[in-house]
Amino acid sequence: MMNTFGHIFRLTSFGESHGKGIGGVVDGMPAGVEIDVDFIQQELGRRRPGQSAIVTPRQESDRVEFLSGIYDGRSTGTPIGFVVYNENQHSSDYENLKNTYRPSHADFTYAQKYGLRDHRGGGRSSARETVARCVAGALAKLALKKLSVEVVAFTSQVGHIVLPGDYTCYDLSKTETNMVRCPDAEVAEKMIALIEEVRAAGDTVGGVISGVIRHVPAGLGEPVFGKLHADLGAAMLGINAVKGFEYGMGFEGVQYRGSQMNDVFVAKEGRISTLTNHSGGIQGGISNGEDICFRVAFKPVATLLQDIPTVDGDGNPIMLKARGRHDPCVLPRAVPVVEAMAAMVILDHYLLNKTKHI
Amino acid sequence: MMNTFGHIFRLTSFGESHGKGIGGVVDGMPAGVEIDVDFIQQELGRRRPGQSAIVTPRQESDRVEFLSGIYDGRSTGTPIGFVVYNENQHSSDYENLKNTYRPSHADFTYAQKYGLRDHRGGGRSSARETVARCVAGALAKLALKKLSVEVVAFTSQVGHIVLPGDYTCYDLSKTETNMVRCPDAEVAEKMIALIEEVRAAGDTVGGVISGVIRHVPAGLGEPVFGKLHADLGAAMLGINAVKGFEYGMGFEGVQYRGSQMNDVFVAKEGRISTLTNHSGGIQGGISNGEDICFRVAFKPVATLLQDIPTVDGDGNPIMLKARGRHDPCVLPRAVPVVEAMAAMVILDHYLLNKTKHI
Amino acid sequence: MMNTFGHIFRLTSFGESHGKGIGGVVDGMPAGVEIDVDFIQQELGRRRPGQSAIVTPRQESDRVEFLSGIYDGRSTGTPIGFVVYNENQHSSDYENLKNTYRPSHADFTYAQKYGLRDHRGGGRSSARETVARCVAGALAKLALKKLSVEVVAFTSQVGHIVLPGDYTCYDLSKTETNMVRCPDAEVAEKMIALIEEVRAAGDTVGGVISGVIRHVPAGLGEPVFGKLHADLGAAMLGINAVKGFEYGMGFEGVQYRGSQMNDVFVAKEGRISTLTNHSGGIQGGISNGEDICFRVAFKPVATLLQDIPTVDGDGNPIMLKARGRHDPCVLPRAVPVVEAMAAMVILDHYLLNKTKHI
Amino acid sequence: MMNTFGHIFRLTSFGESHGKGIGGVVDGMPAGVEIDVDFIQQELGRRRPGQSAIVTPRQESDRVEFLSGIYDGRSTGTPIGFVVYNENQHSSDYENLKNTYRPSHADFTYAQKYGLRDHRGGGRSSARETVARCVAGALAKLALKKLSVEVVAFTSQVGHIVLPGDYTCYDLSKTETNMVRCPDAEVAEKMIALIEEVRAAGDTVGGVISGVIRHVPAGLGEPVFGKLHADLGAAMLGINAVKGFEYGMGFEGVQYRGSQMNDVFVAKEGRISTLTNHSGGIQGGISNGEDICFRVAFKPVATLLQDIPTVDGDGNPIMLKARGRHDPCVLPRAVPVVEAMAAMVILDHYLLNKTKHI
Repeated sequence: MMNTFGHIFRLTSFGESHGKGIGGVVDGMPAGVEIDVDFIQQELGRRRPGQSAIVTPRQESDRVEFLSGIYDGRSTGTPIGFVVYNENQHSSDYENLKNTYRPSHADFTYAQKYGLRDHRGGGRSSARETVARCVAGALAKLALKKLSVEVVAFTSQVGHIVLPGDYTCYDLSKTETNMVRCPDAEVAEKMIALIEEVRAAGDTVGGVISGVIRHVPAGLGEPVFGKLHADLGAAMLGINAVKGFEYGMGFEGVQYRGSQMNDVFVAKEGRISTLTNHSGGIQGGISNGEDICFRVAFKPVATLLQDIPTVDGDGNPIMLKARGRHDPCVLPRAVPVVEAMAAMVILDHYLLNKTKHI
Repeated sequence: MMNTFGHIFRLTSFGESHGKGIGGVVDGMPAGVEIDVDFIQQELGRRRPGQSAIVTPRQESDRVEFLSGIYDGRSTGTPIGFVVYNENQHSSDYENLKNTYRPSHADFTYAQKYGLRDHRGGGRSSARETVARCVAGALAKLALKKLSVEVVAFTSQVGHIVLPGDYTCYDLSKTETNMVRCPDAEVAEKMIALIEEVRAAGDTVGGVISGVIRHVPAGLGEPVFGKLHADLGAAMLGINAVKGFEYGMGFEGVQYRGSQMNDVFVAKEGRISTLTNHSGGIQGGISNGEDICFRVAFKPVATLLQDIPTVDGDGNPIMLKARGRHDPCVLPRAVPVVEAMAAMVILDHYLLNKTKHI
Repeated sequence: MMNTFGHIFRLTSFGESHGKGIGGVVDGMPAGVEIDVDFIQQELGRRRPGQSAIVTPRQESDRVEFLSGIYDGRSTGTPIGFVVYNENQHSSDYENLKNTYRPSHADFTYAQKYGLRDHRGGGRSSARETVARCVAGALAKLALKKLSVEVVAFTSQVGHIVLPGDYTCYDLSKTETNMVRCPDAEVAEKMIALIEEVRAAGDTVGGVISGVIRHVPAGLGEPVFGKLHADLGAAMLGINAVKGFEYGMGFEGVQYRGSQMNDVFVAKEGRISTLTNHSGGIQGGISNGEDICFRVAFKPVATLLQDIPTVDGDGNPIMLKARGRHDPCVLPRAVPVVEAMAAMVILDHYLLNKTKHI
Repeated sequence: MMNTFGHIFRLTSFGESHGKGIGGVVDGMPAGVEIDVDFIQQELGRRRPGQSAIVTPRQESDRVEFLSGIYDGRSTGTPIGFVVYNENQHSSDYENLKNTYRPSHADFTYAQKYGLRDHRGGGRSSARETVARCVAGALAKLALKKLSVEVVAFTSQVGHIVLPGDYTCYDLSKTETNMVRCPDAEVAEKMIALIEEVRAAGDTVGGVISGVIRHVPAGLGEPVFGKLHADLGAAMLGINAVKGFEYGMGFEGVQYRGSQMNDVFVAKEGRISTLTNHSGGIQGGISNGEDICFRVAFKPVATLLQDIPTVDGDGNPIMLKARGRHDPCVLPRAVPVVEAMAAMVILDHYLLNKTKHI
C-alpha cells in the first residue's frame, strides 16, 4: 500500500538493490510538459555511485528507460513508467548476510515484518531505491520550470564541520563545483578531508543537507494534515539515513521569544512580503511566497569496513567480516535526492491547490 | 482532500475556533474495543484551556459528544462521529482582524489560498482544532491498551531551560504532577518561572516536547514512503507551531562516526535486542521493538500581548492593538496532542501491518 | 477506512439509524461558493420519510446543522462538518432483532464482520445513512451551478410498470409533480397504484431509477481506473438496495453490431458532437460533452410486514413477527440520493481534471 | 492520480498500445506467497491476441518480466514491478488517425482532456492495458489459493445468442474447452458462428460475461462506500467496452416482490446459509459466504473493418478507411480480465478485513 508518494503527482516505486532493476510509475504528471531526457539523466548522474573519489566505487551507469507516458518529447498526462536496470551487482558479496542482522540496518526489522527478505545489498531497504525518486523529481523539476520554481540543496554539515550562516550567505550556484556539494570551497575542502579520513578508518560520518525552494507561489499547502512543511518533512524523513527535519528557525528557534521570531509584514514591490523569514516561507502550513528553507539530518551510514560483532537469525553472536563497497558519507549523493523529493512535494501541492476554486 | 489523517485508522477533522464546534470522524477503529468515555474526557482535560495558571484563561469545558460508532460501551467498527461544541467565544475580540494579517499567523496565507477566510480566532488555523486529535488519539490509546503499547510525552525544553539527559533519566509518571508537564520538579519550576516572566512581558516562548512509545511490536512501518518515523514526523509537523522533528540521535547524531552510532544486536531474554538505542526504536523505517523516542520543536506562539506593526489586506501599514486571550507558551497543552498523534500513528501501522500476510 | 467517498471532493459519513444522528464531513468543497441552506434543506425534504402516502410513515424533520466550513454565507474551502440529529426512533421496535438475522438484510454479515452490531433499525446499514449523501450532494449541486451542470433523476420502472422510451421522450421538470417521481403522469399513477397494492399485501417491490447529467464539459474522467462511468457506477452501487448499473445503451446494447452502436461525430454549432448517444456521454471513460445517462436497478426492500421464517444468532429457526415502519418501494425517496451521488462524482472529476495541466 | 486500483492490494498500471510496453507495480502483495510464473504466463495466454481464429490476428508473445518483489520463488512483501514489452506494433497502421476522431473511441475525449495524445493504436485507451491487470490478477489468484477462493468467468451471451439459465446449470470447468469460453459446447458453437459472420461483414458484436466467486469467507466488504459489489462493479466498469454491471438478481429482480426475492436463512452443515441466492453472495455490501455471482455487459467493439464517416480535429467531415487488426468480439479475451479484476477485489477486501479487529 505504501510505496506510493504524493497526492496528485504520485510516484509509485519498486525495486531492490540486487534485483533486476529499480523503477517506478509517475502518475499525475501534467500533460504537455517538454521532457528533457538529458536533464533527467544528468540528475541521475548527480546521485550515481562512482561519480567521485569520496563515494562508493560501485559502478552503475544508471540509464533510465522510459516505458510510457511520453510522446513526441512531451508528457501525455498518462502514467510515466520507467526502469533503471541494475548492472554492477556483486551479490556474492552478501552471501554472508543471508542469516545475519547487520547493526543499524533494516535486516532485522524486515525479517520481523515479512518473515523473509532479499538480503542482497539490503534489498528494498537499500538507498539504491532513491534512483526512482531522482527520476520522478527530475520530471517534477521539468514541470516546475514553467512556474520558475527553483529547488536547490547543498551539504551544510559533515561530522563536526559546519558551514556557518544560512543559505543567504552563499552563492548556491557553486554547489556543484566540488565533490561534497558545499557552496563554500574552503569548507568543502575540510568536509572532503574529513570524509577521506573517516573512510581510511573504515568508518562513516553523518551530516546535514540544507534545502531552499524559491519562487513558490503563496497558497500552497493544506491547513491541517497536509501542511506543506509536514509533507516536506515526511518526504525528507523517507530518505534513507535521515533522522531529523526542521524548517525556518527549526530547533534553534525554540529558545527565542515570539517578539523576536515573528516575521513582520511589509508591502514591497506591489506584493505583501516579510522583513525576516524565520517562518521559513510557510505560515499555518501554507506557503507565503518567501523562500522555503529547511534542514535534513543524516546519520552516519551503518555499513562499516570493519569487523563487526552482531547476531544471526537465531540470536547467536557472530563476527561480521568487513566486505562490500559503500559510501563513507552519504551526503554528496543525497543532495539530489533531497531536491527531488522537495520538487515532487511542491509540484504536488501546486496541482492540488488548483482544486480549491471552481 | 487533506483533512484526513491516517491510512487505516483515520481521523477526518472539521471545525473552526469560533464556529459552532470542533469535531471529526474516526474511521477504522477496530470493533469491540471498550470505550472509556471518562478517559477520553480526561485526555481532553489535559489539553483544555484554563486548566492552569500558565495557559490561556479562555474557558471551555470541552465536552465531547459521540454521535455514532459506539454501542453498549464498545466500538462497533463503524465510523465514530463526534463534536465538541464551542462555548467561550469572544468573536468580537477579533473584529479588528477582519482585514488584518497578523505576523507569523496563517491570516495572510489563508487569504492567498482561499480568497476568503473566517478570521475569528484564526478560524481553521487555530490550535483549537487539536481537540479533534485528542479525541481520536484517546480512542487510539484505548485500542493500544490491548497491545500494552504506552505513549508518553513531556516538556523537555522551554526557551533556554533544558531538561538534561534523555527520557531514561526520569520517572515519566511524574510528568503530570506539575503545570508545565516536565518530569523533573526542579526543572519544571524554572520552566514555569520563565513562562510567567514571558507572559508578564506580553511575550511568548517556545520549547521542545519529547515523546516515548514503549512496547511497540517489531515490524511496524513501511519500508519506503510510509516509514514509521516519516509518518510520526508528518504527524508532529502537522501540529500547530511545530518547526522540527527528530528521532533517535536526531540532529545531534550527525557529528558522530558510524562506529559510535551503530546499535549492536544482542540476544537477551529470548529476543533479539540492541545494546544501545541510537536508532530510536526504528530501523529502515520499521520498529525494532526498542523504545521509540523522538523530539518535537515548537516555536514561540505568534500572538503577543503587545501592539504590533503589520499590514492590512491591501498592504497598508497598521498598528495592531494587543487583545485576546492566549498562551504564553504552548507546550504544556501540546503534550497530550503529541501523545494523541503518536498513538494514532502506532495504531494505524499496527492495523496496516496485519495485511502483510495472508 | 472506507466511509469516505471521492478523490478531491470527499464525503466522510457517519451515523446509525437509531444512534444520535447521521452526519458527515465534506472536504474539498471549493472556496467561495454561495451556500443556500434552504436549497439543501429542500433536497433533504425530497428524501425525507413521511413525505407522502407511498413511503414510510416514520416522521423525521431531518434538519441539517452545519458545524463548520461556511462563513458569511459562503464556503471557506475548509471542511464542512454537519449533523442531522435523529428524532423519531422507536428503538423498542427492534428489540426482537437483537439476536435475529433478518433475511436479505445486513444483520448476518455485520455480525460476521465485526463480531457485534448495533441492531436497532439496521444500524449503520440503514438507508437513513443516505441523509449524509443528500447534504453532500446538495453542496455539490451548489458548486456545479457555476458550471451550469444539471443533474436529474426519475423513476423509470416500478415492478413490471415500465416508463417507455428514454429520458429524451419526457419533460423531466415534471418529475416532482407526483409522489413516485416519474415524469409521465399516467405511468406515475400506475406505479403508485402498484406500490399501494404491494403495501396492502405487506410486501415490497423494486424498480429502476434513470439519471441524466447535462452540460458536463468534455474531458472529465480518468482513462483507466477512475473512468467517469466506473466512479458513477461505484457511487450508485453504494446506495442501499442497488443491484445493477448501466450507462448509455447498457445491457440492451450488447446484442447489436458495432456499426449500429457507434456514435458518428459531426461538427455542429462550433463544437464536435455526436449524432446519436449510445455511448451515454462517456467515451473511453471520459465525458464527451453529450448528456450522460444511466440506469440504476433497485431490488425490492427486504423488510416486509409479514411474519418471516429465519434463524437466530445460533442458527435456530425462528419466526420473525411483522413490525416497524418501512417503505413498500424505495424508489421515490432514492431519486434524490441518485442525484446526490451523481453530483458528487461530477464535481469531484471536474476538480480533479483541473490538475491535468500546469 | 488515478492509475492505481485497490486499497491494500494495489495495482498501479502504465503503458500504451504502441509504446515500449505495458506494465505495472503491484503493491501490498502479502509476503511469502509462492509465485508460479508459469501460471501467470498461462493467464496472460488466455488474454493474448492471436490465440484463436475468432480474435485479432495481431501477434504478441506477451512475456512478463518481473523486476522486483520476488525472491527465491516467493513474494517478499515489497512491490512487484513488471513489464510486458510490446513487440508486434504496426504503428504506421495508425498514421491516418493522427488528426482523426474515430467514432465511439477515446480519441476525441483524450484530445479534449489532455490537449495531446499518443494516437497509435488508441494509446493508453487501448485494451492492451489489460495485460497489466491479468498479471496482477494472476498474482491475486496465487494468494487466494491459500484461502481456497476460486474465481471463474465465462461468456454467457454474444449478440442475441444467450446461454440459458445461470452458472449453476453448467460445468464451468468446460469453459476453456472452446474458443469463445462458454461452458456449453452447443451454445459456444452458435456464438462462434455469429462472431465469424460478424467478422466477415467487417463488423463487431457485444455480449455478456458472467462471473462466479466461490468460497469467499463471510465478512468481506465495507458497509457504506466500499461495498464489496460496488468495488466489484467499479472494477468491471473499468474494463474497456463495459457498459453495465449487475450482481445477484440484478436488473431482472426489480420486477419481483420482496417476498419472492428475500433469501431465507437456514443452518446447514454447522453454518448459517441461505436457501436461495438472489442476493448474489453479498448482503449490505458484505459477503455472506454464498457464491458471489455477477454479470458484465460489453458493447460491440468500436473498431470496424468498414469505411467510416467521421471528423478530423478541426471538425471537418472525413471518411476513415478500414485498417488495422482488431477483435470482432472482445468477449473471449475479456474473460480472463474479468477474472483478474474480481480476484484483485476479493484479495484486497480480504486483507482490508484483517484490520477490523485488534
